[in-house]
Amino acid sequence: MANFAKRMDNIKASDIRQLLKIIGQPGIISFAGGLPAPELFPVEDFKAALDAMMEENGRVAMQYGATEGWAPLRKQIVERLEKKNNIHTDPAHILLTAGSQQGLDFMGKLFLDPGDVVVVESPSYLGAINAFKQYECSFVEVPTDEHGMIMSELDRILATTERVKLIYVIPDFQNPSGRTWPLERRKAFIDIINKYGVVAIEDNPYGDLRFKGEYLPALKSMDPKENIVYFGTFSKILSPGVRIGWTVANELITEKLNLIAQAAVLQTSTLTAMAVSKYLDMFDIDEHVSKILPVYKHRCGLMIKTMQECFPECVKFTDPDGGLFTWVELPEYVNSRELAARCLEKGVAVVPGDGFFPNGENKHCFRMNYSNATDEQLILGVHRLNETIREFLK
Amino acid sequence: MANFAKRMDNIKASDIRQLLKIIGQPGIISFAGGLPAPELFPVEDFKAALDAMMEENGRVAMQYGATEGWAPLRKQIVERLEKKNNIHTDPAHILLTAGSQQGLDFMGKLFLDPGDVVVVESPSYLGAINAFKQYECSFVEVPTDEHGMIMSELDRILATTERVKLIYVIPDFQNPSGRTWPLERRKAFIDIINKYGVVAIEDNPYGDLRFKGEYLPALKSMDPKENIVYFGTFSKILSPGVRIGWTVANELITEKLNLIAQAAVLQTSTLTAMAVSKYLDMFDIDEHVSKILPVYKHRCGLMIKTMQECFPECVKFTDPDGGLFTWVELPEYVNSRELAARCLEKGVAVVPGDGFFPNGENKHCFRMNYSNATDEQLILGVHRLNETIREFLK
Repeated sequence: MANFAKRMDNIKASDIRQLLKIIGQPGIISFAGGLPAPELFPVEDFKAALDAMMEENGRVAMQYGATEGWAPLRKQIVERLEKKNNIHTDPAHILLTAGSQQGLDFMGKLFLDPGDVVVVESPSYLGAINAFKQYECSFVEVPTDEHGMIMSELDRILATTERVKLIYVIPDFQNPSGRTWPLERRKAFIDIINKYGVVAIEDNPYGDLRFKGEYLPALKSMDPKENIVYFGTFSKILSPGVRIGWTVANELITEKLNLIAQAAVLQTSTLTAMAVSKYLDMFDIDEHVSKILPVYKHRCGLMIKTMQECFPECVKFTDPDGGLFTWVELPEYVNSRELAARCLEKGVAVVPGDGFFPNGENKHCFRMNYSNATDEQLILGVHRLNETIREFLK
Repeated sequence: MANFAKRMDNIKASDIRQLLKIIGQPGIISFAGGLPAPELFPVEDFKAALDAMMEENGRVAMQYGATEGWAPLRKQIVERLEKKNNIHTDPAHILLTAGSQQGLDFMGKLFLDPGDVVVVESPSYLGAINAFKQYECSFVEVPTDEHGMIMSELDRILATTERVKLIYVIPDFQNPSGRTWPLERRKAFIDIINKYGVVAIEDNPYGDLRFKGEYLPALKSMDPKENIVYFGTFSKILSPGVRIGWTVANELITEKLNLIAQAAVLQTSTLTAMAVSKYLDMFDIDEHVSKILPVYKHRCGLMIKTMQECFPECVKFTDPDGGLFTWVELPEYVNSRELAARCLEKGVAVVPGDGFFPNGENKHCFRMNYSNATDEQLILGVHRLNETIREFLK
């Protein structure tokens, strides 16, 4: 019998990844994953980019490359960060990662000793919680309202909590809540982390997927002290299958993340990094994103409208301005894990909410995704959910 | 100033990865990397496979996939393990990894608490040492001779050492020594690890690259108790740039490795896994490997012959039957780090040997790679080395 490391006591199967195995079954309508709509992938264009890249540079693509990642792609990322996010950086501060998930693992490895504290929004991204748990940390959850993290609560927590090593936040269309922080909270956040000198991860996988409301600046764009480590990714705007994300950090942190990447994986795929780079050269990714937005806007709107029409009044849900998710809150006596199990029997999959609370107290919420469903599925799925919810109400 | 985790005290830049940055400079002949010969990459065939795969299945390739990896590729790997290595397993026991380096990271995460012991050959692969060091383990080195690990020494160490969690070995054309274990040592190894019930990693990136001598069975092919975790990779037989390797392990370990992969990276690239799968469908990879072998045999032979002709008699080196490396031993008073620095000034790069000894006592060896150099470079590089070595001899 193998004698595993102590950290394995903390590592459990992701509810989402487990659900993904079930929801392939016929007849199941899935609101569980965070999958982009595959019919919107620019398959022909990406195929052309792969083709041109292999034609011009196939040997380089198939060979080992530098740990920090394909230099032309890091330069293109810097240019796009400047243009889209007003973030000024340079390629030396960029590390390519195999999706942002790998950046989470690397940041946990870089900062967390057992017993260290990670401060997160309540709720927060389940995958980030699982990544940090590998390093035997504990979590402090900052209360949130409809505008995201409550900054006075963050200030109080940082003033009174020892061993806080990292703060992890998603200010835009948060996973799972769909909420977005207004400008004044962003400014307050920067002031607070600078006051305490704590490093914060700004995870921004959905920022480009704003389909209503006004642009809000990234935390990283107002971070002269460089306490923010910014995560970007091509997963939601181009393709998750290529596994290309990136970190933007100060010189010292970037150097350390590079050392970790060397030891953990040597490098990301030369081939997919070069293909993404070629795609960006040959095509206008913003034009591609502009085709995604109306579809997600429509699907989100249809899901929200259908819930508004049929859900009982005691059920609350967010109306996001972008991203992939809405968050449903039931009366406190409803156990969302039991509800989700019953939903599966009825042919609709949602992710029970407790996994998004690292300390697990909150049982009466669930997460819904609208990006990867047809109109019919959105309406029928919400109706199935509605029936199931009503079974659970007193 | 960031407050990093304690483990970061152990994580230093890889000599090899640092050297790779320098050796791109014109005029430098590099024997430092472990790079396959890029002129042998089947660029046209792999391009055709990418093309056909994207044509048939582009949406799936660009989407998220299962953590364990593209099922058809895992099936193809199982079939090839059966045919080439007499290893009987099934796809449920395979996890795709982003190269074997990621498997090393995952195994360290799965087994190692701070202070646990990893037993390795002396010398051992620098990248494995660096991967395990992230988990704050200590190392015990098993003495080796020209036939690899000395099994009586392994037995003695396991009998007298507490907290041994893992044994890490490369029985075929070892990195860095180029040595191969004979059959009786393989059998003895299995008996010993079964006696102590210790899990061992058999890392076999070079097994298919045998260019002389007789086939020897993988440890995993004589492992009914399933104490071996076998690592394979496409890096040396097809392309390192795709970052596709795999682990073969018993059910429990595979389940745990899957959980770690979920938390650390979600999954390997769907796109590159599907491209490799399509390549294996469309082309005969063994025919491709059969084109690599005579080239590496020639390059290895030329390097060895040139060293035999010019090196002083006190300098010893291995004559490998396959793989990518030969290992040079100098008189004990020579410091190979100083030698390697002087070599760089003379325009030839080698990897100083001390990084391959986790406890760092051994300073008088270095590693040489022959797979990625022309005949002229092989001869000129060895002559430059010879001149430099003679400067260091008393």
